[in-house]
Amino acid sequence: MKKIVPISLENKFSQFSETWTPKIIGELNNQYVKICKLKGDFVWHSHKNEDELFLVIKGTLYIDFRNSNTVKVNEGEIIIIPKGVEHRPHTNGQLVYNLLFEPKTTLHTGDKQTDMTVKEIDWI
Amino acid sequence: MKKIVPISLENKFSQFSETWTPKIIGELNNQYVKICKLKGDFVWHSHKNEDELFLVIKGTLYIDFRNSNTVKVNEGEIIIIPKGVEHRPHTNGQLVYNLLFEPKTTLHTGDKQTDMTVKEIDWI
Repeated sequence: MKKIVPISLENKFSQFSETWTPKIIGELNNQYVKICKLKGDFVWHSHKNEDELFLVIKGTLYIDFRNSNTVKVNEGEIIIIPKGVEHRPHTNGQLVYNLLFEPKTTLHTGDKQTDMTVKEIDWI
Repeated sequence: MKKIVPISLENKFSQFSETWTPKIIGELNNQYVKICKLKGDFVWHSHKNEDELFLVIKGTLYIDFRNSNTVKVNEGEIIIIPKGVEHRPHTNGQLVYNLLFEPKTTLHTGDKQTDMTVKEIDWI
């Protein structure tokens, strides 16, 4: 059996610098725990079959919704985006550290295949 | 559709004081996001079908395993307990704030029904 060891978020975030490139740090019940550094604007997208959770570890995340509503997610706050809901994360230029919980099947750009789409997500 | 709003961990933790009594703060993909205050020793237990994730928000959590190994989980660290692995959380007397991510079916005391078992977990 794989050794059960703690996973330090700080340590994991220190191991990469690229933004909008999720890294897998854990796995349970067919879900991945991922972390991502965010800066600037992401693409509008939705996930057909999967709800998505963001937990902001550092900074302030903004999520735009198609009804012109923008939700501000502060450090220590969680937001859950239900499947099918189109959204666009952005950061107002700030660097944001984000933790995600989502099914293994989730592609981070959802229904949109763009230059930002990472098809093979690495473990760190 | 339910309004999509941020969930503040600090605010949720401020709404209850009892220990070893998980509260549900979110739901996605048939999983619950729960928070729990921990102090003292919990019971030895395992979860037959579900892996379990703890993210320590405040304090230091200790998890005993049957091989006499104790893993220390600091603030900002995650530990994932695979299904079937017997474990006992404890806190060395300190108050610990813990976030859990687990399938809806998970009972917090796993295979053990004790005085500590909470059968109906509340949303807060």
